[in-house]
Amino acid sequence: MCLSKAYVARNGEPELVLAEVASLKVKDEKLLLSTLLGEQKEIVARIREIDFLTHRITLEKGTKGGYR
Amino acid sequence: MCLSKAYVARNGEPELVLAEVASLKVKDEKLLLSTLLGEQKEIVARIREIDFLTHRITLEKGTKGGYR
Repeated sequence: MCLSKAYVARNGEPELVLAEVASLKVKDEKLLLSTLLGEQKEIVARIREIDFLTHRITLEKGTKGGYR
Repeated sequence: MCLSKAYVARNGEPELVLAEVASLKVKDEKLLLSTLLGEQKEIVARIREIDFLTHRITLEKGTKGGYR
């Protein structure tokens, strides 16, 4: 299985947002993360990096205009 | 292995950009896709959706201001 873990970089420290992410959808400034079990998390963040080997999604909070 | 295929939606038709994507990095409006073998592709596009089960990355060309 290729489910991934999503982290937000906060002050340099990665903070787990959601584990076992099955899909990620981008809607304007929001990201919608979903697991196989139907758990969903919507977050105002941008994708910084996705590593398909380590199953790691790194997000960045907020927009260029500042943090929310 | 969880390597993914990256597609750009063009006129509704998915067009393969790069297969066996191992990592994806976002740099401003550009995406840098890399394979395990060191093949790299830089594209001005945004991520629309990533499906970790079907190993499918769907991109959208251009920015809000128009296509490039």
